[in-house]
Amino acid sequence: MDIIREFALPADREAAVRSQVEQFISSNDGKRIALVTSGGTSVPLEQNTVRFIDNFSAGTRGAASTEYLLRQGYAVVLLHRHSSLLPYNRRLRPHNAPWNFIDLLNVDSNGSITVDSSRVPGVADMVEEYRKVKAENRLLLVEFITLHDYLGLLHLCATLLNGCGRRALLYLAAAVSDFYIPNDKLPKHKIQSQDGPLNLTLGLVPKMLQPLVHDIVPNAFVVSFKLETDVDLLTKKSRQSLEHYGHQLVIGNILDKRKTEVTLVTKSAAEEIRLTDEQVEAGAEIEEIIIAKIAVKHETHIKSG
Amino acid sequence: MDIIREFALPADREAAVRSQVEQFISSNDGKRIALVTSGGTSVPLEQNTVRFIDNFSAGTRGAASTEYLLRQGYAVVLLHRHSSLLPYNRRLRPHNAPWNFIDLLNVDSNGSITVDSSRVPGVADMVEEYRKVKAENRLLLVEFITLHDYLGLLHLCATLLNGCGRRALLYLAAAVSDFYIPNDKLPKHKIQSQDGPLNLTLGLVPKMLQPLVHDIVPNAFVVSFKLETDVDLLTKKSRQSLEHYGHQLVIGNILDKRKTEVTLVTKSAAEEIRLTDEQVEAGAEIEEIIIAKIAVKHETHIKSG
Repeated sequence: MDIIREFALPADREAAVRSQVEQFISSNDGKRIALVTSGGTSVPLEQNTVRFIDNFSAGTRGAASTEYLLRQGYAVVLLHRHSSLLPYNRRLRPHNAPWNFIDLLNVDSNGSITVDSSRVPGVADMVEEYRKVKAENRLLLVEFITLHDYLGLLHLCATLLNGCGRRALLYLAAAVSDFYIPNDKLPKHKIQSQDGPLNLTLGLVPKMLQPLVHDIVPNAFVVSFKLETDVDLLTKKSRQSLEHYGHQLVIGNILDKRKTEVTLVTKSAAEEIRLTDEQVEAGAEIEEIIIAKIAVKHETHIKSG
Repeated sequence: MDIIREFALPADREAAVRSQVEQFISSNDGKRIALVTSGGTSVPLEQNTVRFIDNFSAGTRGAASTEYLLRQGYAVVLLHRHSSLLPYNRRLRPHNAPWNFIDLLNVDSNGSITVDSSRVPGVADMVEEYRKVKAENRLLLVEFITLHDYLGLLHLCATLLNGCGRRALLYLAAAVSDFYIPNDKLPKHKIQSQDGPLNLTLGLVPKMLQPLVHDIVPNAFVVSFKLETDVDLLTKKSRQSLEHYGHQLVIGNILDKRKTEVTLVTKSAAEEIRLTDEQVEAGAEIEEIIIAKIAVKHETHIKSG
């Protein structure tokens, strides 16, 4: 498989992550185990990288879904973009908040620093939940920045998870670039603007989903995402993807409505999930519903093995 | 000036920021006032943006420099990229840290949440410093994401600062794209990968420094940055930039060494600043030295008026 060779990790990074993931899997023996991917991939336009092409993603979907998977009892390997939102932590630094986290801190007369929890509702419970998950060693964070890192790490983690058979869930929420410039065609130094307008030709990124589903984790329950901006294309493209790759579930979403509407497309059905205005108002997250439904489907998948 | 028209802000955003900045300037009457720009600009490749070209920048330079300007007594308007590092706050969420901020939080038996300050040295002093700056109303944050936002906001803020005459300092540390796709050439929807390899032609972004120095803030002390990856080009290009635009100072830096080495290029001299290994070890930041030198040069500039 050319894609595996082209995006192989450097040997030392490969060994370090392999050891981490192997220990994590072995300490969660018997549990359902999810590999969640999250955030956008960066595609360098220069070897000494100043400029890059990126995909829009703060990592909200992956971080939120990870929390709900943990509540469902899963162990989770979260393969996330560097400095994207992280589970639990995301509630302390929402990207759209009008405040800095430092605004929540007070210094007592004895010099100790407390968090003004009235401004972060539920923060105490959230910290407790996080500490419990850590103590149980049910969350492993693995970080990437570039498309190359991402594909290499995805291949490695999935390969190791194959040992878990049908207990493995792949939840591929990362926003992966469709286009890239192969290493051997990258200019070495910063592109100079006095050379005039910039012409870029980007090649297609090989699809990792194909080898994942057929060769790497043939027994896992695999969920992919389809993000479009054009609603007319969405269901058609989600269905095409499912038929083409033969995996279990495609979650279709439209950029503007991704936080309140998704469509779960399986071989037999297309199910729309939509948060009501009241649910949004009350702070509900669509990931809670998505994960509850996936947990049921995954259980069926395990039992059918 | 075409660039001003092309990158004009929507009227409501213009009015809101204008009012904020006017109030800020008037409440800091008589003080030296800095406009610091920080972070990379995003250049959309689609109108409904999924993909964009971005410039590498976490915003460290601008955030750190803002802190040292505030210590020098300046009032600072920080025009920063959304979710880039912010002054003070950056010390609570270093991009390269192996921990989440949530790892620092403890829940007491009475449910109150404290910060484990042993793991964030100096955090109490830092929180106090931030509170003092806020109470004195000496820091205004203005946020951008895209190149369009950035250029429109820079023009507006600089125009308003011109009323401060020689007391105004422009410190242009943002990593601004040299290339962009004009609005009328942007595809409406997400570029489809089945159409094959992607050919992009990007035009040159008009240089804002020219109208800034000559028309918008002719009396201000203007500092620009030159980032290169090729050391052989750096001093030559810094000097060229200074001669071409006729402003006061270019700070040249090489991508890999930007945290420990810079060169301050003025009409009469090129001065290299380099942190020693001992200084780096002790947590010194090169921005402290840069800002101390700029404060002296700016003082001379004010007196020469």
